[in-house]
Amino acid sequence: MTTALNMRSIDTRIIRGGSSKGVYLDVCDLPPPGPERDAIVLRVFGSPDRRQIDGLGGADKLTSKVAVMGPPTRDDCHIDYFFGQVNTELPRVDWSSNCGNLSAGAALYGALTGAGRVVGDTAYVNVHQVNTGRRLVTTVPMKDGAPAVEGDFEIGGVPGSGPRIDVDFADFAGCALGGGLLPTGQPRDRFDVPGIGPLDVSVVDMANLLIFVRAEDIGMDPTASIWDMQADTALVARLEAVRKAVSAEIGFITGPEADETLRVSTNPLIFAVAPPTAYAANDGRPVAPGDHDIFARSLARFEFSKAYPGSGAAGTSVAVGVPVTLPHEAASGLDTDSGAYTLRVGHPGGVLEVAAEVRPGDGGHDVRRALIGRTARLLMHGTAYYP
Amino acid sequence: MTTALNMRSIDTRIIRGGSSKGVYLDVCDLPPPGPERDAIVLRVFGSPDRRQIDGLGGADKLTSKVAVMGPPTRDDCHIDYFFGQVNTELPRVDWSSNCGNLSAGAALYGALTGAGRVVGDTAYVNVHQVNTGRRLVTTVPMKDGAPAVEGDFEIGGVPGSGPRIDVDFADFAGCALGGGLLPTGQPRDRFDVPGIGPLDVSVVDMANLLIFVRAEDIGMDPTASIWDMQADTALVARLEAVRKAVSAEIGFITGPEADETLRVSTNPLIFAVAPPTAYAANDGRPVAPGDHDIFARSLARFEFSKAYPGSGAAGTSVAVGVPVTLPHEAASGLDTDSGAYTLRVGHPGGVLEVAAEVRPGDGGHDVRRALIGRTARLLMHGTAYYP
Repeated sequence: MTTALNMRSIDTRIIRGGSSKGVYLDVCDLPPPGPERDAIVLRVFGSPDRRQIDGLGGADKLTSKVAVMGPPTRDDCHIDYFFGQVNTELPRVDWSSNCGNLSAGAALYGALTGAGRVVGDTAYVNVHQVNTGRRLVTTVPMKDGAPAVEGDFEIGGVPGSGPRIDVDFADFAGCALGGGLLPTGQPRDRFDVPGIGPLDVSVVDMANLLIFVRAEDIGMDPTASIWDMQADTALVARLEAVRKAVSAEIGFITGPEADETLRVSTNPLIFAVAPPTAYAANDGRPVAPGDHDIFARSLARFEFSKAYPGSGAAGTSVAVGVPVTLPHEAASGLDTDSGAYTLRVGHPGGVLEVAAEVRPGDGGHDVRRALIGRTARLLMHGTAYYP
Repeated sequence: MTTALNMRSIDTRIIRGGSSKGVYLDVCDLPPPGPERDAIVLRVFGSPDRRQIDGLGGADKLTSKVAVMGPPTRDDCHIDYFFGQVNTELPRVDWSSNCGNLSAGAALYGALTGAGRVVGDTAYVNVHQVNTGRRLVTTVPMKDGAPAVEGDFEIGGVPGSGPRIDVDFADFAGCALGGGLLPTGQPRDRFDVPGIGPLDVSVVDMANLLIFVRAEDIGMDPTASIWDMQADTALVARLEAVRKAVSAEIGFITGPEADETLRVSTNPLIFAVAPPTAYAANDGRPVAPGDHDIFARSLARFEFSKAYPGSGAAGTSVAVGVPVTLPHEAASGLDTDSGAYTLRVGHPGGVLEVAAEVRPGDGGHDVRRALIGRTARLLMHGTAYYP
């Protein structure tokens, strides 16, 4: 942080990571984690303000994300990546979760700044995901010593195409709570949710803390657009009620502050899943049942994702490999028992693929692979100013 | 434009101007006006894409604005400022209008880059508004040789406060059509609008082409939030019907392409006005009848403004000074005959003030002043990259 033009200033990269957009800062320019750092991040984003007009925030949860990058503090990694979700309505930054989309941007950041190991036209970047303490294993296509920009890989929620960045979340089982893949010890539970009654739920701790329900059980019309779903306040309220009840039941978010914590905390994310269904993606293009293995919609903090969280994709792919879970049931057409498999998730932005492998392990599940393909791009590099 | 990191790149400033956010580029880095320039601007913004995820656009009309700055091409000005509204849904940039909010950012840009004349702690920056050929007379508060950042001036739609930048639009009468202040020759007309019937309308060419209707005549509930108004598709359709009918009637937008042109063109803007009314601003703060002189809501291209366009504010203030216009009628509590006056506009973001003066002139109206106070701030300066 320096001073110029009557303001404080900080070296800043704006990077699209997957279907999100993030502001990437260098840890060396920031004070240690705490209120002072949060105040700087909020000021750079123009938060709290629903429009984030006086800062770099994009006035949407997918574009109000910060990544603090730095030298690796884990021996087997090339770079540190610490993720924060910047609230638009409250002066809060939530550092409790990871973002799978910004993870791809973190890999790109590593490749841009010379972290990682370049072999031929590939940068191998191991990213220490500081929030979880886990390791992302990534590859970034290179050209002439810099990340490649042209490529034919398409991801839902992003127009056009780019080179495919691979991000493997295999290390992320149990990362949110520090226990195993299944925090309740079971692949499926029945929770009594106030206002709804008994409901089948799968709780999976993989990349983030994830709650799965059946779209049908929650009264979701799978053919509705994500904007119509968002406008259905009763549907949003039911999903948030499940999020709240499960969080309390498993002892994750409890007590008198629970409502506010749930409002600012990305974790847990909740997903409504169903067998493959014909629907229209956000851009109007039809998605056919044969195009995907599982239908899924994601919500956190009263807001549907217009695409699909990268962490949720990794977690969904692993959950599908665990018999009896609701994602396993919804994707019953997919063989997950014979080894590696590829899950195609039908989300509002289109279809995304995850390569996964889950084996029965010592007293649990051994996640060998949860690899998502993303694209990412540097949009701007320069100096951000803030009062 | 240069090449680096496998992309093209361009020196870029992101500036908040008033309650809008703009990307400011240097004319020297761009090809001449035409499809090639438009393609670059669209790519920098990530348009067309409703989310503008792969570029610097903010996914809202108030944050999808470009300003092309350059050396002055008018003798009595210090800097050129050419405004473009970047469409999010079509590959189009509309260069046909001006933006009053970005005008304040253009003044700031001038002061940042050493254009203008600094006397004491004030930079006097005359901005050549290239779209209209007119001159903006502005003052920017300075401190230690750079634009001041701390100040106590507040504007609706922007949290906090800043130093007041004055922007005078007095030169902008007749700027859109090149005729006089009243394109129809009359302060009030009655147009037959399909689906609505005969309707009182005032057409005013001031800073942009502005159409005024009574909120009551158009069935607007003045106490509704701007989000509720936006959700009222019948209301939006009625206002767009007036916009279309008047545009056709005065020969401004006609022919088979009219619908598409209206969809991408900011001009004309339409305003629903009423006498002062009690309502809640976007942030929940109450606005009392005594706090403002005129109630107004602005719409263009099927979208309500969440604040109030700066050009619309200048135009509204002048229209209020012209007897028989609908704004004059709505602000009947204000004395505009005795010389200079200050109009307080009650808009969704709060209240803004405009200092104006209109005198009867040779065969028309002599606009001596239409001065709005704005704040603006440099958010980021650096290099934008695009494929």
